[in-house]
Amino acid sequence: MIREYTQEEFAENFLRSKNKGGALNEEVLKTAKEVLEDIRLNGDAAVKKYVAKFDDEVPDTWEVSAEERKQAWQEVSQEVIEALKKAAENIRSFHAKQLQNSRIMQMGEDIVSGQLFRPVERVGIYVPGGTACYPSSVLMNAIPAVLAGVEEVIMVTPVREGTKIAPILSVAADIAGVNTIYKVGGIQAVGALAYGTETIPAVDKIVGPGNAYVAAAKSLVYGTVGIDMIAGPSEVAVIADENANPVYIAADLIAQAEHDKSARTFLFTTSRKLIEETKAELEKQCTVLPRREIAEASIQTQSAAVLVENIDQAFELSNRLAPEHLEIQVQNPLQQLSKVKNAGSVFLGENTPEAIGDYYGGPNHVLPTSGTARFSSGLSVDDFYKKITYLYYSEKALQEAAPQVIAIANEERLAGHLRAVEKRVKG
Amino acid sequence: MIREYTQEEFAENFLRSKNKGGALNEEVLKTAKEVLEDIRLNGDAAVKKYVAKFDDEVPDTWEVSAEERKQAWQEVSQEVIEALKKAAENIRSFHAKQLQNSRIMQMGEDIVSGQLFRPVERVGIYVPGGTACYPSSVLMNAIPAVLAGVEEVIMVTPVREGTKIAPILSVAADIAGVNTIYKVGGIQAVGALAYGTETIPAVDKIVGPGNAYVAAAKSLVYGTVGIDMIAGPSEVAVIADENANPVYIAADLIAQAEHDKSARTFLFTTSRKLIEETKAELEKQCTVLPRREIAEASIQTQSAAVLVENIDQAFELSNRLAPEHLEIQVQNPLQQLSKVKNAGSVFLGENTPEAIGDYYGGPNHVLPTSGTARFSSGLSVDDFYKKITYLYYSEKALQEAAPQVIAIANEERLAGHLRAVEKRVKG
Repeated sequence: MIREYTQEEFAENFLRSKNKGGALNEEVLKTAKEVLEDIRLNGDAAVKKYVAKFDDEVPDTWEVSAEERKQAWQEVSQEVIEALKKAAENIRSFHAKQLQNSRIMQMGEDIVSGQLFRPVERVGIYVPGGTACYPSSVLMNAIPAVLAGVEEVIMVTPVREGTKIAPILSVAADIAGVNTIYKVGGIQAVGALAYGTETIPAVDKIVGPGNAYVAAAKSLVYGTVGIDMIAGPSEVAVIADENANPVYIAADLIAQAEHDKSARTFLFTTSRKLIEETKAELEKQCTVLPRREIAEASIQTQSAAVLVENIDQAFELSNRLAPEHLEIQVQNPLQQLSKVKNAGSVFLGENTPEAIGDYYGGPNHVLPTSGTARFSSGLSVDDFYKKITYLYYSEKALQEAAPQVIAIANEERLAGHLRAVEKRVKG
Repeated sequence: MIREYTQEEFAENFLRSKNKGGALNEEVLKTAKEVLEDIRLNGDAAVKKYVAKFDDEVPDTWEVSAEERKQAWQEVSQEVIEALKKAAENIRSFHAKQLQNSRIMQMGEDIVSGQLFRPVERVGIYVPGGTACYPSSVLMNAIPAVLAGVEEVIMVTPVREGTKIAPILSVAADIAGVNTIYKVGGIQAVGALAYGTETIPAVDKIVGPGNAYVAAAKSLVYGTVGIDMIAGPSEVAVIADENANPVYIAADLIAQAEHDKSARTFLFTTSRKLIEETKAELEKQCTVLPRREIAEASIQTQSAAVLVENIDQAFELSNRLAPEHLEIQVQNPLQQLSKVKNAGSVFLGENTPEAIGDYYGGPNHVLPTSGTARFSSGLSVDDFYKKITYLYYSEKALQEAAPQVIAIANEERLAGHLRAVEKRVKG
């Protein structure tokens, strides 16, 4: 089932030298490019054309009405509503601690400088609406935006049954504080948000998961708008010692593997016995899994178990891998936290399955994949701020700075820069 | 000279609807792709091949020796050295106020959560070495990285005379705290940093300006490594009232325009008289400018003056434009700062020419262009951190969370997620 590798084999097969990063399919990019250009030039008419082409039904009005949003609450169970509300509370309180104020770096009579923190003005959230219908990603994407003070949070998602969107997504949008929902999905939704149409206003940043076409479209509109990231296959790495429970580890690897045949799962452990027991558990637990076929394909082709001599070797491999999710299932896990250098999000101890973080605990589940945790971070309130620096110099401060600025400008052979200062000090 | 537009004409010609964002030349991308792939597969041999092809001389060893770095100090004037040291001091103290500590969001017996702040481990800084030889960009790119705690800061720059790099760049690197310098430039330098070669270690993030080939190469290696941004033409917008000095405004517009024929310069003012006087000043000041041809081409084709009825209209236009640099030359400029929603960096009052910020004041000069300040920010210490979230649940906390997590997992039809929790609570 899960395949075993030596540390050298693992490095050879899974570490960055072999990882070219999230390359997008050329054909998909070509399609996305054509659709986007059409929407940029023809607005609503083009959007309608592609909705009709790619989805089954074209709703008369794209905006989900207040009536429909109200109605959706009747179509979701109280139990799920309460669960989402509690999850939203946890996510909100975790992200609220990321709020930042504008800063003053220097404040004197002659010099004032700092950073203004300003929310992005309008944000678009893409939410898949097909088989993968995830209210949790509505919460994870919208809540940090609302907290940052984004004036308008717009959600787009394709219709599911007839001309309606999935009620659960509408409810999650209400809980998260989404202002407007449009019944549009796919490349055309990304294009509408990036360029704006008669109906759908252009946004400043687009976040949220999507299929290969959505990902390609997001990569192409980057620059015109901001985007969160282009996510690769989801990953989990588990660092475990001999005390870890193979039943839990297998369950967590399967929870990752059931997402997608290309999902990646890794086990780094000091215990040969644990590897054997985990293999057996994987076999056993997969047999009763609804998404068995997907999970097994993922584990057979995209997983690795590596036996290490000590826990520090496990952390070294994990840091080089920079996994999206990292579970630390060892004694006193909090004491090991300091060894983490690269990871998207860390889950400590045997009672913190990744599933807690996916839905409920508070940290964001939008995380860097494919080793990009070496240089980037999961979604946070920061992603919805702009940090604008500012500087004020008095005449006196300028007089004192002038000789240095002139010397550097002169060295860089930019006379215009030099004179912009000279004209002020020499009058 | 500078062309005048009505507010409507300005919106039509310069605002986002017309701006597709920094599109890269297809031919250039094709070349970059080929070179990068060759370097990825063949390492040093390929790098050497392209250095020989694109640059004049191939140095025997690429690393700038301690000897050469020491020697460089003899070849730069004391005046310039002192100016760079003072600038570095200002930049360091401004950025030091951006340092962040790891956070604890929740710390109880049963739940611990937070964010670890970890520096990016290895950073590569690209520094152009040809006619555009800018020690200031060595300081602006390296200082925030060093402050964040990056273990290894590597600079790459092409040789200038014979097999030497420009001494001023070596001195700036010493002042900023760059660990290693390699005499390689162009696409091949970006490839070496992204994939690593026998000589040049792979980095986690590449920052720094470059020509179209370097920009294309950076955009292509994004994903394998992080990058700062793909910069478009440099821009300045000036908001001025009737008290502003046309001599200073013209000087500042010229300082921007002398960079590049495609540099963009804007004036938003309540004073018709100021527009006329600025036009006259532009004529006059350009005539004595060494880079006159560039500046005049830029101003004739890429500049706009817009007469507004009041200052708030000026801020509205500026916020929609989201200029890289914004000068506010009005009475009590600090009181107007709160009106800025979108800009890279702001310069307040007539004694704060952009040139102060470019070199000396403290804020970073690596800034978002082409309207991307609507959703992104200038380079800061944050760009060299990863924010890794962590979560610990006790058995008790998991028991309490289980029903909600199970309800959501069930709603999302992910049985593996559900069971990862169930197996722990039901044993």
